[in-house]
This record gives sequence, C-alpha cells and structure tokens, in this order.
Amino acid sequence: MLAQLPGATSPVKVAIAGIGNCASSLVQAIVEAGASLDDPGRERDTPVTLPGVISATIGGLAVSDIRIVTAFDVQLEKVGVDVGKAIKTPPNCTTQYLEVGIVGVDVTPGFLADGVEGPIAELIATHPSCNDVSIDDITQQLTRSGAEVLVCCLPTGAREAVAGYAQASAAAGVAFVNATPEPVALDESLRDLFAAAHVPLLGDDLRSQLGSTALHAALLELCATRGAQIESTYQLNIGGNSDFLNLSDRTRSREKWRSKHRALEGSGGVSAAHIFAGPVAHVAHLRDRKVAHLNIKGRLLLGMEFAVDVRLDVEDSPNAAGVILDAVRVAATAARHGEGGLIQDVCPFLFKCSLDPVPESQAQDRYSRWIARHDKRTHDAP
Amino acid sequence: MLAQLPGATSPVKVAIAGIGNCASSLVQAIVEAGASLDDPGRERDTPVTLPGVISATIGGLAVSDIRIVTAFDVQLEKVGVDVGKAIKTPPNCTTQYLEVGIVGVDVTPGFLADGVEGPIAELIATHPSCNDVSIDDITQQLTRSGAEVLVCCLPTGAREAVAGYAQASAAAGVAFVNATPEPVALDESLRDLFAAAHVPLLGDDLRSQLGSTALHAALLELCATRGAQIESTYQLNIGGNSDFLNLSDRTRSREKWRSKHRALEGSGGVSAAHIFAGPVAHVAHLRDRKVAHLNIKGRLLLGMEFAVDVRLDVEDSPNAAGVILDAVRVAATAARHGEGGLIQDVCPFLFKCSLDPVPESQAQDRYSRWIARHDKRTHDAP
Amino acid sequence: MLAQLPGATSPVKVAIAGIGNCASSLVQAIVEAGASLDDPGRERDTPVTLPGVISATIGGLAVSDIRIVTAFDVQLEKVGVDVGKAIKTPPNCTTQYLEVGIVGVDVTPGFLADGVEGPIAELIATHPSCNDVSIDDITQQLTRSGAEVLVCCLPTGAREAVAGYAQASAAAGVAFVNATPEPVALDESLRDLFAAAHVPLLGDDLRSQLGSTALHAALLELCATRGAQIESTYQLNIGGNSDFLNLSDRTRSREKWRSKHRALEGSGGVSAAHIFAGPVAHVAHLRDRKVAHLNIKGRLLLGMEFAVDVRLDVEDSPNAAGVILDAVRVAATAARHGEGGLIQDVCPFLFKCSLDPVPESQAQDRYSRWIARHDKRTHDAP
Amino acid sequence: MLAQLPGATSPVKVAIAGIGNCASSLVQAIVEAGASLDDPGRERDTPVTLPGVISATIGGLAVSDIRIVTAFDVQLEKVGVDVGKAIKTPPNCTTQYLEVGIVGVDVTPGFLADGVEGPIAELIATHPSCNDVSIDDITQQLTRSGAEVLVCCLPTGAREAVAGYAQASAAAGVAFVNATPEPVALDESLRDLFAAAHVPLLGDDLRSQLGSTALHAALLELCATRGAQIESTYQLNIGGNSDFLNLSDRTRSREKWRSKHRALEGSGGVSAAHIFAGPVAHVAHLRDRKVAHLNIKGRLLLGMEFAVDVRLDVEDSPNAAGVILDAVRVAATAARHGEGGLIQDVCPFLFKCSLDPVPESQAQDRYSRWIARHDKRTHDAP
Repeated sequence: MLAQLPGATSPVKVAIAGIGNCASSLVQAIVEAGASLDDPGRERDTPVTLPGVISATIGGLAVSDIRIVTAFDVQLEKVGVDVGKAIKTPPNCTTQYLEVGIVGVDVTPGFLADGVEGPIAELIATHPSCNDVSIDDITQQLTRSGAEVLVCCLPTGAREAVAGYAQASAAAGVAFVNATPEPVALDESLRDLFAAAHVPLLGDDLRSQLGSTALHAALLELCATRGAQIESTYQLNIGGNSDFLNLSDRTRSREKWRSKHRALEGSGGVSAAHIFAGPVAHVAHLRDRKVAHLNIKGRLLLGMEFAVDVRLDVEDSPNAAGVILDAVRVAATAARHGEGGLIQDVCPFLFKCSLDPVPESQAQDRYSRWIARHDKRTHDAP
Repeated sequence: MLAQLPGATSPVKVAIAGIGNCASSLVQAIVEAGASLDDPGRERDTPVTLPGVISATIGGLAVSDIRIVTAFDVQLEKVGVDVGKAIKTPPNCTTQYLEVGIVGVDVTPGFLADGVEGPIAELIATHPSCNDVSIDDITQQLTRSGAEVLVCCLPTGAREAVAGYAQASAAAGVAFVNATPEPVALDESLRDLFAAAHVPLLGDDLRSQLGSTALHAALLELCATRGAQIESTYQLNIGGNSDFLNLSDRTRSREKWRSKHRALEGSGGVSAAHIFAGPVAHVAHLRDRKVAHLNIKGRLLLGMEFAVDVRLDVEDSPNAAGVILDAVRVAATAARHGEGGLIQDVCPFLFKCSLDPVPESQAQDRYSRWIARHDKRTHDAP
Repeated sequence: MLAQLPGATSPVKVAIAGIGNCASSLVQAIVEAGASLDDPGRERDTPVTLPGVISATIGGLAVSDIRIVTAFDVQLEKVGVDVGKAIKTPPNCTTQYLEVGIVGVDVTPGFLADGVEGPIAELIATHPSCNDVSIDDITQQLTRSGAEVLVCCLPTGAREAVAGYAQASAAAGVAFVNATPEPVALDESLRDLFAAAHVPLLGDDLRSQLGSTALHAALLELCATRGAQIESTYQLNIGGNSDFLNLSDRTRSREKWRSKHRALEGSGGVSAAHIFAGPVAHVAHLRDRKVAHLNIKGRLLLGMEFAVDVRLDVEDSPNAAGVILDAVRVAATAARHGEGGLIQDVCPFLFKCSLDPVPESQAQDRYSRWIARHDKRTHDAP
Repeated sequence: MLAQLPGATSPVKVAIAGIGNCASSLVQAIVEAGASLDDPGRERDTPVTLPGVISATIGGLAVSDIRIVTAFDVQLEKVGVDVGKAIKTPPNCTTQYLEVGIVGVDVTPGFLADGVEGPIAELIATHPSCNDVSIDDITQQLTRSGAEVLVCCLPTGAREAVAGYAQASAAAGVAFVNATPEPVALDESLRDLFAAAHVPLLGDDLRSQLGSTALHAALLELCATRGAQIESTYQLNIGGNSDFLNLSDRTRSREKWRSKHRALEGSGGVSAAHIFAGPVAHVAHLRDRKVAHLNIKGRLLLGMEFAVDVRLDVEDSPNAAGVILDAVRVAATAARHGEGGLIQDVCPFLFKCSLDPVPESQAQDRYSRWIARHDKRTHDAP
C-alpha cells in the first residue's frame, strides 16, 4: 500500500558535498525553478520545467520540488558562509546565469582526506576546522539536516574522500548520487554497504547532457554499423575550471581516462591501441567552457580513406547539473518507494560507469520504463 | 516449394544504367571480389568478403557472385565500348583502386530523355544513336541479357529517364534498384506497376556507407535525447564529380534538397526554418571526394550555449557502391523467392527516402530480420 | 594655427546610400562615439576611440566627428522615416548593440535602377516615389544636405545604381566611398569623372576588419614563402543577411567572385584551376553572422601531404563598418586638403579591388604614411 | 681574394648527431637529390632542386651537393650500423618516401649525458659503449671525418648533451646547426666559444616549413593589424613520434613551451594570461604526423564576437628537414667565406629562437640579402 509514502509531492531535501562549479549550476537551476513557481502567468496544474531538463516530473517531483538542506566544503573561503555566496567564490568560474541571493544554508566543514591534493592544492587553502572532521561528523550533520539525498560533487581524484562521504551517507540512511569518477557503485564493498543498509545508490561518473564521450561513441557506432572500418581515433579535452586542473594530473585523472577508454573501446570495433581519449590540458582562460577535438580516420569500400573531425564547445557545469536534477529526483523517489542498494535500471542512462553497461538505446529504454513505473505508482496512491 | 529456385548460389546477373563514378566503384568491387576467389590462401568454405561490405552473404549470395551482363549509357565516348574502359572515361573521376581490364560487356545506347540537361550538358556529348532509343528497346535488351536486377545510377534530376528505365525493368520482369533521388518507390503509379508485375522494387535515393545526412541526423538525435535544445543547424556539401555539377543546378537537385530536409526535420526537434542542408557547390578539384561541413548550435540548462562543428571527408562513389552490393543481392534474393512489388522491410536501411520511414534502430532491425529469414529459407531448401 | 584650415576639427558631414545592415552598424558606431563625448570620466584632450577602429584620428578627425546629414533608400518601409528607425527595419538583421533613438535625418527616396533585382526582389517592396528619382535629384539632395562624403552601401550586383550615385556625387562635388564590389574606381570613365571634377574617390569593395579573403591570402602566402607546394584550396562563405541573398544569385555576385579569385590567385602560387572561393549559400538563420570554411592542401619535402582547415565566424556588418569609419575620414581629409580623383595611396589597404594592387605590407605602409602626412599637414597649417 | 676558397662547388661534408626521424627525412632528401643528378632528362646547367626546398642554391651549393660523412647516436640498435639502416630503426616512424640503401657511413657511439631520460627511456635502450664517450671523442671523430657542418637533431630536453656536441663542434672547427630548442645560440658562454674559435653557429630551435607557431603568429598579426581585439587563444599540438613522447614530459619540454609563448606574445597584442600553446599529448597512432588545433576569440567594432578555428595536419620530420637543407648550406657557405660566431642575419628566418628576433617580413628580407650577397661573392671569384 502506497498511501503511507512520505508525501510524494513534498519537496526533496538535498545535501551537496563539494560547492564547486557543478554545485553552482545546480543551485542556480533550483533557484530559477523556485522563482518560476511564483510566475503569475504560469498554469497552476502543470509542473515547473526548465529548458535542458530531461524529465518534467519523476515520482511526482518537479524541479521546483528540490530544496538544499545542507552543504559541505573544505575551502577556507567557503566554510561557514551561505551557499548562495559560496557558489560565487573563486576558483568557481561558471557563468552566473541569475543572481542567487541568500539560500539560508551555511556551508559545513567537509571531510578532507585526499580532497585537495596535486595541482589544485596550490589554488585552494583548506579551512583549519576540516582537519578534525570525521566520517561520523558527516553522518550526524546529514541526519540533523533531514537530507534525503546526498549529491557528491567532489573533485576528480578524491578517491578516499568520496568513499568517506559514501559511508557517511549509508550510515545516515541518505540516498547517494556519485557524480564523480571515483568508484562507489563499482566498488563492491561500498555497494554492499548500501544494499545492507537498504539505502539507494546511484553512480558512477555522471554523464553530461552533451558529453564528448557520448558524442564520440555515437560517431564510432555510426561508422561501424554500415561497414566502415575505423583505423584510429583521438579525443582531446580541454577546459578552464578546477576540475581540469585536477585532470591535468595524470595520477588523479586515472579513473577518468579509464572510463573514457572503456566507453570507446566498446564502440565501433577500433582496437585499443588506436584510441587516444582524455583531458589533455587545463586552459585557464576557458573558465567553465569545455572544448573537445575529435578525429576519426578509416576506410570504406575499395580501401578509400575517410575522415571525420569534430569540435564540441559547451559550458561544463550546467552540462552536468541538468542530469543531476534527474538523478536527485530518482534517488528520492527510490527511497520513498522503499527501494535500496544500487538502482541498476537508471544508472546506464545517467552515469558513464555503470555496473551493467548496455547500449544507449537499451539504457534509455530501461530508464524510461523505471520513470513510468514509479510515476504510475505515485499516481495510483489513494 | 523452394527446390525449384533458380539456384540460390548461381551468380546474380546485373544490368547497370549509367556508367558514371558509382558504376565504376561497383565494377571495381565486383572485379576485386572475383579476383579474391582465386586467391590461393583463401578458405574454400567461407564466402568472399570485402572490407566495407555490410553483409557477407544475402540469400546465399556473396559479393563474388555478382556478374555484370549488360550496361546502358548515353555519353558519346562510352556507348559501344567495353564496360572496363567506359568506367575510366572522363568526366568519371573516382579513384582507380585496381586495374580493371576487359569486362566482356559493351555499353548499349541508353534511354536519353532528360538524362543530360543543365550544367552537365556542357560537359557531355550524347551518342547520336541514343536519340532513337525507346523504353521498349531497353526492355528488349534487358530480356536479351538475362539480367535479374537493374541498378539505376543515373544523374540526379533525370526524372523522366529514371521513370523510363523503371518501366522497362518492370516490363522485362527485372528487379529494380533505384539509387537516384528521383521518385520510383515513392511514385504511386510506378510502385503499382512493379506490384502488378510482381517484380521486386527497391528505392529511393541510396544511403551511403558514411553519409553526411546520416551523420547529421545522428548528432541531432544525440543532442535532443538528453534535453539539449537545438536552435539552428546547417550542412554544406561540396564535391567535384559530375553528380555535384548536377546538384549545383537547384532545379535538378530539388529532390535531393527535399530528401535531406525530410531526414533532418524528423531528428532533434529543430524547426524547419532553422535547418539548412544541401549541396552548395561543385568544386572541380575535389574530383570524387565529397566534403560536408556541419554546424549545430543550441542551449543547455540555464540557457548555456553549445556548438558542435563537424567536417566529413569521404570518397563519394565507393561510399555508395558498398551499399549497392547489398541492394543488388537483396533484389535478386527477393526475386528468386518469388516476391514482388516494393520490398518494404529492407528500404529504410538501404535508402534515404522510403515509403515508410522508421527510426534508425528499427530500420536496422527490420533489415537484419529480412536477411536472416531469407538466408534460412535458402538453406532450408532441399 | 589651426583656425584657418577649412575646419580640420569641424565634423564631417556624411551621406549614406543604402540603409541596410552596414549602414546600421555605421550609425550605431557614430551614435556610440557621440555618446562617449559626454562621458564624464573622459579626458578632454584625447580623441574618442572605439574598440575595433584602426586609426584614432585622421586629419584631426576622431570617430566622434562624423555626422549623418542625409540618407537614401528605395525600400517601401524605409523611405520617409528617420534613419534611427530605418536601420532597424527588416530585412535588416544585424545585432542592435545599442539603442539608437531619433537621428533627426529622414530617409530620402533613392535612385532605383537595378538596385532591387533577383532574389531580393521577393523580399523588398520599393517605394513608389523612387520610380521618378533621377541622378540629378540625388545630386541636388547631396548639395542641399551639405554632405562632404557619400558612402555607397548598396547591395551587391546593383551596378547601374552604384554608377548613378557615383555620377551624382561627382556632380555635387562630394567625395565618394564605394563600399560595393561594383566597379567605380576600376571603371575608367567614372574614375576620370572624379579626376576631372577634382573630387576624391575611394574604392572598390571595402575590405572587412577580419575578412575571409584576407585570411585566406595570408595563409596561402605563409605556405608559399617557405617552399610548401599548394595543390588546391577552397573557401566557402555563407551568411544570413540580404547581401548573401543577393550573392546567391550568380549573375549578381559575378564581381564578388572575380574579386575573391583575383586576390587568391596572387597568393601562394596555386593555379587558378585549383582555387574555389565564393559565397555559396544564403542561410537565413545566421542573420548577420558570416561563416567561412577554408581548406588548403599541399605537399612538403619528400612529397609529404599537409592540410590546413579553417572556420571563421564573424558578424558581417560591424566587420565592414569599422573600416568605413576610416574611409569616411580619409575622404573628408583629402577633400579638405584640396585633393581630387582616385586617392591611390589609401585604397589597397581599405579596399579589396584597387587599381594598383600591392602586397599587404606595402599597402599598410602606404596607408600609414598617407595618414601621417595629412595629420602633419593639419597640425602644421599656419 | 676569394680564389683560394676551398671549392665553392665541392660537396658539403655533414655530420649528424641524433639519427631520429628528422635525420631520416634529411638523409632521404639527400639521397633523392643525388639520384636526380643522374636523371638522363636533367639539364646539366641547372642545379638539382627538390619540391619543398626554399633556396635552389646557397653559396653555389645545390641540395645535391650535401654528403653525410659521419653520424652519432646512442641507441643500442643504431650504433655500429649503416646510416641507411639506422634511419629505419624504431622508434623512428616517419614515412619512408624512397628506398634508402647503404649510405656507406656507420653510426658512431654518441655523447649520452641527459639524452635519454624521462618517458623515452622506457622506449630506448642505450648502447653500452656510449657510457665512455667524452666530448673529446666527439671532437676527434668530427675531425677524422672531415665534416664541415654538424647538425644537432637530438631529442627535446637533452640540454647537457646538446651543449656537449656544441663544445665538440667548436673545438673541431666545425660549423654548428642547432635544430633543438635547447639553448646554444641563446647561451652566452657557448655563443662566445664559437665567436672565439671563429666557427659559424646557427640556432636555436629550427623553424618548420609549415609550423603551427608560424601559422598562429601570422593569424594573430592579421587580426591585430586591422583593429580586431583578441581576447584569448589556444594552440594544442599532438604527435606520435618520440619527440612528442619527450614533449609530454613538462620538465623536458620547458624550452619548447617558452619558445612558443615568446613567439605568440609578440603577435597580436593578446595578454600572456590568455595564451595557451604547447605540445599536449603523445598520440602514438599518429606516428610522424603532427596535428595542431588553434582557436582565436575576440571582438570587432560594437563589441561583436568573432572566432577563428584552425586544424593543421603535417608530417613532422620532412617539415623540419626542408629547412635543415638550407641551414646546412648556409653554415658551410659562411665557413668557406671565413665567417665565424653566430650568423645573425639568417637565424630569425631559419630558427624560432634567435638572439635578435625581428618581424617575419624583416627576417625574410635579411635572409634573402645574406643569400644574394654570398651567391654574388661566390660567382665573382675568378
């Protein structure tokens, strides 16, 4: 019986770990959706939607039903200040699409571990209070805040810190969305933790609305389907935000390279030795823009050569935040329906690395069916 | 009863109308496949395949089972000479990948009608004997040659001439493959003609192995699937062969423009007013190379702009001939299995304009199932 | 002492023929410069400059010293209305960078001749009063307005109309700046007319700040200088404004194609047969943006292939207006110094087709020296 | 009196340090030029030229007048074998344009120092005999071989090894051409060494025939000349040869990055903070191809945005070898005319880093005048 569900249309309470560019775009979108609620011209019966959001409602939840209830960060200038101010603090550099005022939530000292190492350590000073923060402290703060979902937006390479937040989340009974490439859904012990606690887990490595790897894979498949033989291909990614600074460190970006290569090797039948794909440089003046240069070379009938060259230019953080808006509502809906552990049906569509990777058309199909099933159940509740 | 089938593995007898670049690549591939038969290192039990061919066998037929039995053209220098020589005659300009010797089939005077009009008329002198050729003459030559399939490779814009060959083909009981954008499968009365005569028909407008429109449509769909809003897009095609000379005449290329726009309007939800796609120039020094420049502009979450730019560079004629090798074997297999009229299941995968357009994944699925079904029936025959 | 000069610092009175996008950008820049004059933070002794203007002062004239005194057009909706309103009337489509109010000059009925023919005639209705306008009427209006310089911004292909304005200008003793590709400076009889009347003439075919042909020529020269052998090259230009609509008519764009090819054949030693360059399509959704796709192919030592591919994306009209701001001040300065006929020293730098074409470095050198000489004479005047 | 000159037309005896891809292209070109000498159709009185070579003769020397007399390398498989074989030994990967047979010169053990460090050390095993080779040993071998010019083609980053060869060259009285970015011409003490020994020195960092930095600088200048304001620019270089493997090590490629940035900061008035230019990745499957992706963004009049995107695709080693063929003949001519120390007039045209950098047009002018002056003196000799 679904009648006892804790209010299908009551807002989702969300916690964010890592108040970087991605959090900035997410907060801006939530504020914009909230403002649209009061738009006098709006039809009362239709849910608030935003351009760029995939699903209008998930489990009855519109984008305007998302609330930030707590936030974690370790940067000196961000800890203790309102989220609305923290999202504008450098090195954050994504476009401020709208004026975000006071959100009413202060940034809590976060779990440091390996969160600030490598090149980014020269850019960011950590807040002294973070040195003492334990996984338990995070658990308690999550509980105190009443959060239903924790979105992990930590920098690439912060493997230990990501694992820490995952443990805290499972312990607090808060659904976990791992937007980073560090393994949580793909880490057996962490995955088991969420299954045992019966808490929803989604991950790893959030797909973008329009990502270079998705684009690259689609092109390789198109070539291969019709008998074109791919001989070699490259993908060069550059960007100006601090995530690219992290990625320019080959040790910290190891998971990112793996994730990209795994996706491409599955497409188009080109041998691993002739694929090169990854973030190659931090180009500061691009700020939050991300540019990818792709090249595919191969042969057609009679050995005739062909070449495809692509340049993709996007704003990095809104590209990710659009998908987080779906992931958060999926995680909350799963929790409200009493589901726990890895939510496998939705992961291949929302994330780059899923436990059970499937072709794009199947990924989309499974996702749509999960959404339809849960919308139905919500609507059927008396 | 399939036992009476005229030899599932007896070679396919093919007629070609229009000995241009496309025919040149087709003949080269057939010669190459034939040569492979005698390759001492070849395993006897495996069918001959060529890089760039989609299906190894169709209805039991390998690429090496295709024979040219007659050929039609109207150009002064091509009529009366061996096909092996005619394919190298200018304005033909595709790469001669291998040395084609005497094929043993002379080019017969073709049906002229509107086959040489517009800019190409300055390049090509027609053979005087073609002035008297009627549709009946073509029918008789087809019958005399024993052809099972007629592939129509006439220039773009030769609407009347294409219709003439279609009528001749139906009258002779020869399966018809319309590689041109002029309407045959999409012309109700011609389609009815083939249905009434119970002769297989395939068309219209052959898809390439790696075509600019297929690439463009795939990119638009990729953007749209994940909520990206496409604002505008263009596709500029240039080439140096005589087909592009024809296409530079906006009247003659009318069907080409329609075909491209129809394909793109279905993808990605961008309004027709913001799509521009078509052949824009004949650039002689490109010879048989074809280059497409694509651009897609749109917005993501928070109104952030994105742009995708693509350059595609292919050899035009082998790009088409690879697909003709499949279409010819499909047409022959259908005929040998006693099927007639428009072979709908295979058209959306092999042609740009089909009577019943379906999404790419369905097109491929239907095609594969048709191939599997007919391979089975062939094998099952006692 | 500057007081006796025929007003070195008195504003330049300018007439414009053709109130299209180019005029729109020009008027916007003049309004912006005027507004800057009143900027409280401005240093009184320094001339007003605008980003994108080559010379701060010419003959003592800053950009803020330009005044529109009369304007001609033939479009139904533009004739009789204030210039500030006419520049915003469709099909004008360039970006309105700033809000232009009432300029105080109404558009006078223009000289029609062949000004609205071809594809653009479907877009534009002409004002009935223009049917009776003669060259004499234009001369009288120029004299009445007190104009010192007439800038001709008519559409491409309006050969007769451009010649008419040139005759009117010479007759009225008004310096003439021919921004169009139709021949005036390169037409011997028109050139003689200005020489005989001792009235300054500048032309033909205004160069842009950042033009596709200038870019193309620079790249070809770079390749050739160091021994690289260029085999072939193309340049495809597309745009969405009404000039591109005109250019899509190959008859009307004849001079444009000639002008582009002449410029490229001089550079890089590539044979004319292997150059293709010109406007290939009117892509309406680009509005006033102009996009050029360039490709250069060739060989280095040991026959090794190289390729250069370029995409240039600019706003078309401001790209031209920036150079007109210089040309107008040069024309006025020449007139005020008593010079007449073709002002040869400045043309190769400001125009694509000059009577005496010279390499870029010389063009710039001659121009700079002309400017320096006339600035000096202005200051030295007793 | 020039009569005693040691034979203006006697062949130049050349030593090469580093038998990598660059040496391979150089040797191929020399062999090709030699073969052309015997071409029965050749006019006896005209010098042998090769496509891609800038100057037909320098000081009376044609390309066919160059002879390899000795060669140094440290790689296990190259030491002790004939140069014709060593140039084909992996990791060498440049295209073998022609079949080079036995050259008749064995590779001598080279001076190791820091020549094989960083990523390349995993690819290359050094020959044991190289551990004992001193600078003196190199000097003696140079003397023994009768070399007039030593071309230094060592890998990027081998600062100490390059300095060692320079010292050996000065001591042996052999002219030195530094093709590497490590400082020799720009190192005061090494430069003084050549001045004191009165031995010609040319360097540093050979310019390519068609280089990404030359292209980039030309584009920035083009934009700046006409008032366009450049806001930011990037240049991403990738390649597959072992030089790119070296360059992927940021410590070893330090001089390369400096050299590129210095060249671009001088052009176009864009601030250093908004320039990013350098080798970003070793993409093995590109082999000896080098690809550069360039982007320039800025504003025109009225703040309108423009963008230029470029892709350059070249074979890396012949791109360099074409210029070495000039540099070697300049060095020999200088020596034969009794000139010593840094040959300043020719360096800015042939090298990226010269002591006295000048604009491109001046660089070319000085170079041409040096060539003309020395050709004259050679011809004047009785």
